[in-house]
Amino acid sequence: MARLSRLTTLADGQVLLPGFCDLHLHAPQWAQAGAALDEPLERWLGRYTFPTEARFADLAYADRAHRHLVDATLARGTTSVLYYDTIDRAAAVNLAQVCAERGQRGFVGKVVMDDPDANPDYYRETAEQAIERTERFIGEVRALADEAGRTGHAGASPAAATGATDVDGGGVRGAGAQTAASAPDGRAALDPAPPIVQPVITPRFIPSCTDAALEGLGALAAKYRCFTQSHCSESDWEHATVRERYGRSDTEALDMFGLLTDRTVMHHCVYLSGSDADLFARRGAAVAHCPLSNVYFANAVAPIRRYRGQGVTVGLGTDISGGYDPSVHAMVRLAAIVSRNLASGVDARLGAGERGGVPEALMTLDQAFYLATVGGAEALNIRAGRLEPGYAWDVQLVDVHAPGNDLPVFESDEDPAITFQKIMNLSTPANIRAVWVQGRLAHGSLD
Amino acid sequence: MARLSRLTTLADGQVLLPGFCDLHLHAPQWAQAGAALDEPLERWLGRYTFPTEARFADLAYADRAHRHLVDATLARGTTSVLYYDTIDRAAAVNLAQVCAERGQRGFVGKVVMDDPDANPDYYRETAEQAIERTERFIGEVRALADEAGRTGHAGASPAAATGATDVDGGGVRGAGAQTAASAPDGRAALDPAPPIVQPVITPRFIPSCTDAALEGLGALAAKYRCFTQSHCSESDWEHATVRERYGRSDTEALDMFGLLTDRTVMHHCVYLSGSDADLFARRGAAVAHCPLSNVYFANAVAPIRRYRGQGVTVGLGTDISGGYDPSVHAMVRLAAIVSRNLASGVDARLGAGERGGVPEALMTLDQAFYLATVGGAEALNIRAGRLEPGYAWDVQLVDVHAPGNDLPVFESDEDPAITFQKIMNLSTPANIRAVWVQGRLAHGSLD
Ligand SMILES: [Zn+2]
Ligand SMILES: [Zn+2]
Repeated sequence: MARLSRLTTLADGQVLLPGFCDLHLHAPQWAQAGAALDEPLERWLGRYTFPTEARFADLAYADRAHRHLVDATLARGTTSVLYYDTIDRAAAVNLAQVCAERGQRGFVGKVVMDDPDANPDYYRETAEQAIERTERFIGEVRALADEAGRTGHAGASPAAATGATDVDGGGVRGAGAQTAASAPDGRAALDPAPPIVQPVITPRFIPSCTDAALEGLGALAAKYRCFTQSHCSESDWEHATVRERYGRSDTEALDMFGLLTDRTVMHHCVYLSGSDADLFARRGAAVAHCPLSNVYFANAVAPIRRYRGQGVTVGLGTDISGGYDPSVHAMVRLAAIVSRNLASGVDARLGAGERGGVPEALMTLDQAFYLATVGGAEALNIRAGRLEPGYAWDVQLVDVHAPGNDLPVFESDEDPAITFQKIMNLSTPANIRAVWVQGRLAHGSLD
Repeated sequence: MARLSRLTTLADGQVLLPGFCDLHLHAPQWAQAGAALDEPLERWLGRYTFPTEARFADLAYADRAHRHLVDATLARGTTSVLYYDTIDRAAAVNLAQVCAERGQRGFVGKVVMDDPDANPDYYRETAEQAIERTERFIGEVRALADEAGRTGHAGASPAAATGATDVDGGGVRGAGAQTAASAPDGRAALDPAPPIVQPVITPRFIPSCTDAALEGLGALAAKYRCFTQSHCSESDWEHATVRERYGRSDTEALDMFGLLTDRTVMHHCVYLSGSDADLFARRGAAVAHCPLSNVYFANAVAPIRRYRGQGVTVGLGTDISGGYDPSVHAMVRLAAIVSRNLASGVDARLGAGERGGVPEALMTLDQAFYLATVGGAEALNIRAGRLEPGYAWDVQLVDVHAPGNDLPVFESDEDPAITFQKIMNLSTPANIRAVWVQGRLAHGSLD
């Protein structure tokens, strides 16, 4: 195990926290983040999103936007990101290159969308092209990872991680002291020193893909044992469309195509039935909870604590630009917020007893923090998200007295639990002084 | 009308927006913002909030915290704030002094809470003390305002205000080209050059006050024609408690005591009936919508568009520290977010048709922006919130290319409506380069 090359003492008000994982982010949509969210989905996709993504065929533009985004997410303490890029293979490879260069752990997907009835002519490919290009993409990103090497230092010195509380005790993919060689049934091993970049098989979602493409991608997932991702049961419309097409749920359909594995993260998952959630748990597949995006496009609040209670691994996703905020800190806040709307119900015309709230859905700030750290790392099968020996040094240094910040911490002897809550609810990028990924400094500095 | 003392040209990416009004903020609670929100109300008040407020009897501490808060809100583009301070008269006067000195328009309340059964011994006063001290406070703050003078420049040069859309067309308190001399029935005049600070009569809420205190405060409101504020129908508990005590709604009870006037802002107002909202409209009283705080303490989402449709004036409030975020920009985002949960319903187990959503509750980003600007200014009876001739120059200069910010604006010819949406959803304090109140620079600079 590598050792720290120098000893240092943190200043008063400086706190180490695990780096955050963002389990869902459409990199090209960063160019339109914050815009057009009052549009209905069809217009949002057709008029804004597809043209924005198609533009990334211009590699110089793509490179500029990718760098801006990777820097923006690192500056917010995000050490690992599961990305969608576009259907353009070269653009997606560029994103992986930028991640490797900047030192952010990037799980990168070249998007597949091939159904001519569901996608615009200027932004789609055939099933054959999709499969061939995805296979080539897998090879290119793996070569890039080999080239970048497994940099950095595995293993962390003991340090103060405050406030992480398991949501419901269940569903830890590769829990506790498990090593790579001893993963429990149905779950992938946690890797303390994974490649800096990994390719991800990425059908956009079932409604945009033909069966031929989905079958081909499932076969690639088996052949290469690599990560898969898609949108699953995101909205009433998507959930119903898949059921109409296959007579089964989105979860079951993805599983049928071999896309639900122990290297899978499915996005949104607002409408999973009990048996869908069981299937996630059995397969060791994880859920990306996207609390902000769901407000705009999902028609309900994802019942995350129910899934956790069934043993499903869950982390958080920004879903740029269905969600606009690139900060997982913001997703922690919003996961708590939307859980409260679900817990109490929303319609004030009804009495408290008739409002239809689901009290057991309430998520505390600590529980949401757990999803951003431990949950996200387990979803990505990386041994990170905790400040413990044997875990990767994926860490953010937060400073409540950083210049350009105005967190209201007025006493040097404030209860650390209170300071932790202030950090989680109020910190801005100005508070994040340094970020390390796999022991390598990727943002800011210690000084 | 005063003239600009020099001409300047805004740089590419710089935009002028009206300054924001924060209609509800407990100044002393800034010291605990972000903390303890997973506690139930009673513990939150007794264990955290009352001790935090009581500490402001230490004037040196109060002064430090007040300065930090006024600077923090100015730095976020907030030009006018309706404050609660504590029950301590001297502390509340200090807050008014800090506002006058820093140049923020401060409406400041010395809190009243006198019921011995409802408040801790260490943090309450008698009804007689409350009334006498409030009257003295009114005189002190008015003297302070006279001393500070009516600084600055009334009247604004024409400039580009993007995106402000009236929510439902109704309820504009002193709309359009109205002058101070021609206020419509039941509504107060809009003042283009109001005092920099004003005293506000502030019973904490009915459950913490005796009838004697409420009657005395109502009499002061009539005698001095000054602003009143309180919490109104915030939660199931509060709403029910008042009905049990008086056999009438919170709105009706406040009106009975003479506390619902055309110089009134009531906070939260989640459970107003149709006739309650009518009474607000008839009296010309305004509502402070606190979307974040309501998530934590109100048990439902305030149906703001319904109130607007009935002609009620509405603005936004942070409600520090029931809400943690000192930014009205954040409240704009959250007003849109919670409106979507109300519009769609939240429980994914129910079919879309059975989820109990209220589609007409949906608030667009433009509509929420209207509340932060025009709505807030009308609630405070100030002729501000619009960049138009005859309106006070309460303005924030937003810069999408400011140092230390990373808004994703990649093209200089981007559609201004898109840039506006990016600013509203993604800007941070780093983007706010300068803030003027009544024509006087209160934060940052033009350079
Ligand atoms: Zn997505
Ligand atoms: Zn309040």
